[in-house]
Amino acid sequence: MESNKKLAIVLLSGGMDSATVLAIARQEGYAVCSLAIDYGQRHALELEQAAHQARTQGVLRHLVIPLDLRAIGGSALTDDLEVPKGEPRQGDIPATYVPARNAVFLSVALAWAEALGAQDIFVGANQVDFSGYPDCRAEFLQAFERMANLATRMGTEGRPIHIRAPLLDLGKADIIRRGLALGVDYARTLTCYDPAPGGLACGLCPACRLRLRGFAEAGLTDPAPYARR
Amino acid sequence: MESNKKLAIVLLSGGMDSATVLAIARQEGYAVCSLAIDYGQRHALELEQAAHQARTQGVLRHLVIPLDLRAIGGSALTDDLEVPKGEPRQGDIPATYVPARNAVFLSVALAWAEALGAQDIFVGANQVDFSGYPDCRAEFLQAFERMANLATRMGTEGRPIHIRAPLLDLGKADIIRRGLALGVDYARTLTCYDPAPGGLACGLCPACRLRLRGFAEAGLTDPAPYARR
Repeated sequence: MESNKKLAIVLLSGGMDSATVLAIARQEGYAVCSLAIDYGQRHALELEQAAHQARTQGVLRHLVIPLDLRAIGGSALTDDLEVPKGEPRQGDIPATYVPARNAVFLSVALAWAEALGAQDIFVGANQVDFSGYPDCRAEFLQAFERMANLATRMGTEGRPIHIRAPLLDLGKADIIRRGLALGVDYARTLTCYDPAPGGLACGLCPACRLRLRGFAEAGLTDPAPYARR
Repeated sequence: MESNKKLAIVLLSGGMDSATVLAIARQEGYAVCSLAIDYGQRHALELEQAAHQARTQGVLRHLVIPLDLRAIGGSALTDDLEVPKGEPRQGDIPATYVPARNAVFLSVALAWAEALGAQDIFVGANQVDFSGYPDCRAEFLQAFERMANLATRMGTEGRPIHIRAPLLDLGKADIIRRGLALGVDYARTLTCYDPAPGGLACGLCPACRLRLRGFAEAGLTDPAPYARR
């Protein structure tokens, strides 16, 4: 029974960061409900890996909410635009930025948190490597938390909601070390923006480059399957 | 052609407040893209009235995004709970509150605003009559706007997003007078929480009571069809 544990919502994407965050929330003693958003991403395998992480890491309930952002457009991850290759460029907002994605996903998590009475929402945001995403910065997350407490019954009734981003200031190698120490199976995570049929990571897109560099810096080999690396 | 006009997003629910806000945005000279969220509300007629308002008020594009909040639960408007009857009670958060609804809807509007480059998002929030909804208060909207500008490319690149709530401090009678002066057809709006088959407003729920009282205070008869009033 986990009924005496504090409840948390974890936003789970199927990538390595959110899988690590789930393991951290479990280690901190939370009973976890995990949330994945089916936003019309190019690769449904992401959602399969999210469900796998939820199952193997013992969440109470894993919820997939369909929210098709393709109708809104504006990103190489949802539109028929070319996904860039190579190292991420510091300072630019990448073509793979999905407009206001973290605001949307965190808001849906907030709605579920309020319905369940969960005071903690965990998210895999990281401001070290992909500094180009405005919605991965500490000041965004702080502003979201403030808004969340004004938006909700819980916030106005003295049970404040906390946005938890334990990876915010970690580099990829540190994230990997932390996750491996907690037993995260990174073979069952998908980071690639543009995977080949069968789920092989491309090895070339900015997300793959960053991930492979993280494993190299940690002195390890990435257990996930790649088309090339 | 409206290409030289400023673009705004209007959140359109099918109710009288958002229909009025749409008319205000048009009067202010905006070219409007309207957004309705199909969140599993009890009555699809709301969405039909939203589409009718969009069509007759000349929006550039009306987008309906499915986002099923029933899986999240926690409200009489989405769950199989009884909708309360009678006057709204001041100060309480009603059973019809949908957890974090305005945060979710505004976030989706924000994503579309950023994809289109629209700097203004109009919403029918009102803090006079339904003071029980935390996410209809000025301080929530201000916190959302601040978050929105930290979440987005536009906000970080000096084209700030504005959350516009022109009805925020108006009573229902004033909203009705304002809308009628702008030609809003209130016969084609649905406010009722629990309409009868065929779309007749119940006349008994808090939303109906408030609306009917507003028309009475304005010395007018509500043109919408009611089962009883």
